[in-house]
Amino acid sequence: MNELKQQGNKVALVIGAGDATGGAIAKRFAQGGYISCMTRRNADKLQPLIQEIEGFGGVAYGFASDARKEEEVIQLIEEIEANIGEIDVLVFNIGANVPCSILEETARKYFKIWEMACFAAFLVGREVAKRMVTRQRGTIIFTGATAGMRGSAYFAAFAGAKHALRALAQSMARELGPQNIHVAHVVVDGAIDTDFIKNTFPHLYEKKDQDGILNPEHIAENYWHIAQQPRDAWTHELDLRPWIEKW
Amino acid sequence: MNELKQQGNKVALVIGAGDATGGAIAKRFAQGGYISCMTRRNADKLQPLIQEIEGFGGVAYGFASDARKEEEVIQLIEEIEANIGEIDVLVFNIGANVPCSILEETARKYFKIWEMACFAAFLVGREVAKRMVTRQRGTIIFTGATAGMRGSAYFAAFAGAKHALRALAQSMARELGPQNIHVAHVVVDGAIDTDFIKNTFPHLYEKKDQDGILNPEHIAENYWHIAQQPRDAWTHELDLRPWIEKW
Amino acid sequence: MNELKQQGNKVALVIGAGDATGGAIAKRFAQGGYISCMTRRNADKLQPLIQEIEGFGGVAYGFASDARKEEEVIQLIEEIEANIGEIDVLVFNIGANVPCSILEETARKYFKIWEMACFAAFLVGREVAKRMVTRQRGTIIFTGATAGMRGSAYFAAFAGAKHALRALAQSMARELGPQNIHVAHVVVDGAIDTDFIKNTFPHLYEKKDQDGILNPEHIAENYWHIAQQPRDAWTHELDLRPWIEKW
Amino acid sequence: MNELKQQGNKVALVIGAGDATGGAIAKRFAQGGYISCMTRRNADKLQPLIQEIEGFGGVAYGFASDARKEEEVIQLIEEIEANIGEIDVLVFNIGANVPCSILEETARKYFKIWEMACFAAFLVGREVAKRMVTRQRGTIIFTGATAGMRGSAYFAAFAGAKHALRALAQSMARELGPQNIHVAHVVVDGAIDTDFIKNTFPHLYEKKDQDGILNPEHIAENYWHIAQQPRDAWTHELDLRPWIEKW
Repeated sequence: MNELKQQGNKVALVIGAGDATGGAIAKRFAQGGYISCMTRRNADKLQPLIQEIEGFGGVAYGFASDARKEEEVIQLIEEIEANIGEIDVLVFNIGANVPCSILEETARKYFKIWEMACFAAFLVGREVAKRMVTRQRGTIIFTGATAGMRGSAYFAAFAGAKHALRALAQSMARELGPQNIHVAHVVVDGAIDTDFIKNTFPHLYEKKDQDGILNPEHIAENYWHIAQQPRDAWTHELDLRPWIEKW
Repeated sequence: MNELKQQGNKVALVIGAGDATGGAIAKRFAQGGYISCMTRRNADKLQPLIQEIEGFGGVAYGFASDARKEEEVIQLIEEIEANIGEIDVLVFNIGANVPCSILEETARKYFKIWEMACFAAFLVGREVAKRMVTRQRGTIIFTGATAGMRGSAYFAAFAGAKHALRALAQSMARELGPQNIHVAHVVVDGAIDTDFIKNTFPHLYEKKDQDGILNPEHIAENYWHIAQQPRDAWTHELDLRPWIEKW
Repeated sequence: MNELKQQGNKVALVIGAGDATGGAIAKRFAQGGYISCMTRRNADKLQPLIQEIEGFGGVAYGFASDARKEEEVIQLIEEIEANIGEIDVLVFNIGANVPCSILEETARKYFKIWEMACFAAFLVGREVAKRMVTRQRGTIIFTGATAGMRGSAYFAAFAGAKHALRALAQSMARELGPQNIHVAHVVVDGAIDTDFIKNTFPHLYEKKDQDGILNPEHIAENYWHIAQQPRDAWTHELDLRPWIEKW
Repeated sequence: MNELKQQGNKVALVIGAGDATGGAIAKRFAQGGYISCMTRRNADKLQPLIQEIEGFGGVAYGFASDARKEEEVIQLIEEIEANIGEIDVLVFNIGANVPCSILEETARKYFKIWEMACFAAFLVGREVAKRMVTRQRGTIIFTGATAGMRGSAYFAAFAGAKHALRALAQSMARELGPQNIHVAHVVVDGAIDTDFIKNTFPHLYEKKDQDGILNPEHIAENYWHIAQQPRDAWTHELDLRPWIEKW
């Protein structure tokens, strides 16, 4: 028997567990007794994470799913709700920046960045919200970025997608809050301790020694905190930033 | 001879002159001596506007063009620059809201609203900016909305598109400003005196008698003002709102 | 011996513990092992709170102090640091709104609202920060309000004070963050479960039955959360709002 | 006879005409036919400006007035309204930054910066608004700054004052707009071509050759533009920034 399973068959679904942040969030909710369901495009790569969660007595399932495809999203949510449990927490954690001059940005890339960071969030958010409103409960958390507040030079595509994501989060919060669904937006401002940063931006990674990049487990702790807030005091938006980060 | 033609063969291009606002802007720049080029999906419908402009001695051309289609956009800009004149002012004025519960929003509509209000702006903005940077001069104005600042309930699609548009405007302004290209974002907050409002929201239209809805010509005057600003004092963002509008 | 004293002689100082929020925050930090120091203008009224804290094994001290008076503030901080312990957490929790038409607002009231909600915050924040920088550690949390983000009609005085407070929090965060001092701003948006609301706005208080007003203990939990964040993932700003609150 | 006097005895009052910006605004409204009333602490220094205005046929009066003193403000407004004309436009243009570490900021300076940039604005704004509401017309413009939107390090005092000023402008706009009084806030972002900048920040002044600092006359033109807007399309806020300014 799994001692952690104090949440019944409640599911925390993390869309985009391919990076360290999504993985840490899935772990945190599994530690808290949720069944963690995770997606990334290649489900095999989720095995180490599932094993780690099972290793401490948690329950986790991995799914290959492309969140930009409406049919895949609908099928994913149906499958989880039918076979695993009610999705009580949704975390949307997809989005990547590829800075570019506006003069050279391609239509294809501009579209794809929006499709990943925003359109997918809409699809998943809507599908999960449909279930949550029938139960009049649930938590939906979107991973945002500073680019959601400010359009910097060379960030037209990413800032556009993240601004649109923030608008989605606000609009959903205003519509669904009074239906007891807590919608939140977390502004991550700074480099995260991931393999991507380690390999691609070694000069950023050097700041790790002085706590200058975000630890995914610490990010996850804030998602957990949000999901535990009683409904008389919900946070819609908070930022997370290393102490030495300029802003 | 056209007495107004004091701007040489400088073109003001208004993308989306199908509504009263776009039309008024095209007229204002024609009055100021620009050659006004206007687009809407059905060019025949631009004839009355062209005749009105020609009536006061202005010069205007209408184009059928779907700004969401990259090839059409590229062809449009090439044609204007090759045959009419240098695009010195670009006004992007497309975008329509169809409020909807997030629970019932379709993927198709969510996409289309973004495609019209944001993706098209990216395509046209990029293509025109490419020409402007070679000349190191130009003005680009995007028509924004309150939904670009705030995600209200039932506005997820429109607010997302308008937030993304605002991010585009900011990002372009930061990159292109130092290349002497003035990028601005006008936040129109309130109903505009259009046939659409007259027919669809008669209770809003009633406010016209007390100046409670925006006169397109007054909006246009502000676009003109922005385009005339000397470069030591450029406005990136201004709002326009009837005196009695709640905000 | 007090089992809770696991923080050494670390002090959490709550300026403005006269209302339920300040009191709950003082309690929460005492529960977490801090020595809670609290101020209000009349220290006698703090006795019940001190006894409650001592009742669960906590340590608390009350001070009569007018935070608008520089000399009193300096003396207070000196006394605590000399006789009780190092101030590791500062919470500034003063500020009251008295809505008024701008046409009838008096200079005296406009000044007093700023003096209480902003000037006092500056005085206390500066004095405590001076000590914290010598130790290169500490947390400073300011209680903000929606009025800090938006100037509503009839709120000129309160919105001005709260805007200025937010600017103070931001400026201090940007200067002091890289010195390992965590400065945060909590936007409380909604009525709080206090005697003031109960007696003055009974129609708001009625919402308590459906969790429609903020529970001070739940607010306090978020202050505690902020103060515990590792420095690679600090929150500068979060909002707190009942689920049914319009915003 | 003064050919410019097409505004009847309408007065444009500029509080703080001691710098180039206030002076240019006073000139612009005099050119537009208003009687320009100007204040600074030492009225003698206004003589050159008055002569310049009279030189082109305008009408101007100078007043020594400390806008931080309620009685002086009341007396000034009474005197102008009784002896010169109805104040139809008010421009508030006082405020100066003296950056400082929060650790070293004095209570006296923190107070004075607020008193000048915000409290004085409240006093003058209220007194003039009282007259304008009886006539149900008027325009009030506050000179803001980037510090009104963002609290940078070392800017705690100035950012606080300018944030509070912006809140005042918003609150007044929301209350007084529906009474036909147009309240606007102009965000000046960048160095202005003044003796102060020339003498104190020569490295900024060097940018003048490439239009990198704001020309006061160009700022003034935007104030004029705002004051001329028909009430169906009022601007509450616009920014002004040199083309090469980073933001």
